Amino acid sequence: MSRSAFDAFDGLDPLVDLVQALKRLPGVGPKSAQRLAFHLLQNDRQAATALGESLLKAVAEIRHCSMCNNFCHSDVCSICSDTRRQPSLLCVVETPADLAAIEATQTYRGYYYVLMGRASPLDGVRPESLDWPKLSQRLDDSEVREVILATNFTNEGEATAVFLTDRIRRMALKVSRLARGVPIGGELEYTDPSTVARALLDRRQLGTETD
Amino acid sequence: MSRSAFDAFDGLDPLVDLVQALKRLPGVGPKSAQRLAFHLLQNDRQAATALGESLLKAVAEIRHCSMCNNFCHSDVCSICSDTRRQPSLLCVVETPADLAAIEATQTYRGYYYVLMGRASPLDGVRPESLDWPKLSQRLDDSEVREVILATNFTNEGEATAVFLTDRIRRMALKVSRLARGVPIGGELEYTDPSTVARALLDRRQLGTETD
Repeated sequence: MSRSAFDAFDGLDPLVDLVQALKRLPGVGPKSAQRLAFHLLQNDRQAATALGESLLKAVAEIRHCSMCNNFCHSDVCSICSDTRRQPSLLCVVETPADLAAIEATQTYRGYYYVLMGRASPLDGVRPESLDWPKLSQRLDDSEVREVILATNFTNEGEATAVFLTDRIRRMALKVSRLARGVPIGGELEYTDPSTVARALLDRRQLGTETD
Repeated sequence: MSRSAFDAFDGLDPLVDLVQALKRLPGVGPKSAQRLAFHLLQNDRQAATALGESLLKAVAEIRHCSMCNNFCHSDVCSICSDTRRQPSLLCVVETPADLAAIEATQTYRGYYYVLMGRASPLDGVRPESLDWPKLSQRLDDSEVREVILATNFTNEGEATAVFLTDRIRRMALKVSRLARGVPIGGELEYTDPSTVARALLDRRQLGTETD
């Protein structure tokens, strides 16, 4: 809301507060915040109530798994308490959404560790500010033999992987990284050159077993 | 959240509920809803709490002014209870945001009526479904002499204006519409032809007084 738009709602604090709160959502500017607030109050008060209640409930009930750091509402999440998984494999991801992306493949049967962030030197997040002690504790206390670094292939994700590789190698554990290459269904003509270059470099000899 | 992404958060109902509630915001699809939920829980729980509380407060406290239909938390809003305004002028707008846009000009000193919608035959909203009885009541009980139709210049806004013009004329009141033309700062070269055509048609003779 611009200053002058505010004037028309002078003294209407609940509306002004709601617009301010909506503005804190990522990607929502003053105009969209006002539009969202008006929409909810005008057309969908039920949705507003549902959202209000579920926000407060989620904040109150969702905490982090003491093992993997993922969202959870007990002490240990359902993945970490699943004893049928392979205890020798630990996959490190940036966010719960990344964990979900890997689970969706239905091919990974190890455990996870969720960093809940990434090193991002440009935003002032140094690798050291990641919760390394908690991950280190997790590696110390367990039968993990291989750590799969599944941070994103962005600058930040790569920086995070470099930092973690260094630390984990010192613990004498095997460290691997997801393969980079041309996506399934990808056409070379439309794939960016650095991806093609990486796919060339990491080419696989046919007729041999996967390591 | 896709079905498979849900699986990774199986049993984490508060999170699933939050994503569902966020999806009801206009312009928020499943992916953005998940991203918003993760962002709030991961980085800004304070914002989540503030938003949750302000939504519930706004829904509980904000109702409609009995005179002009605008958002309000008493029976009559601050504009309608301002006796220094001109009682002969009533400006009809579609939404509170439109009212704010007119107030921001600081040139209008009459009263308002907010339709809280528009006729939109393509979406099944017929002009008859607007709250005409309430507006008609407002016109009956007051000293209004001129109704300024400030609905938008979209198909829906125009249809609404046509419908209202007809009804208001039957009450022997003067009806006017905002002027259409080239925007201030507009260049003819980049203005759409129908706007230029309208500006030609509605051209003003110079050296005469405004009606």
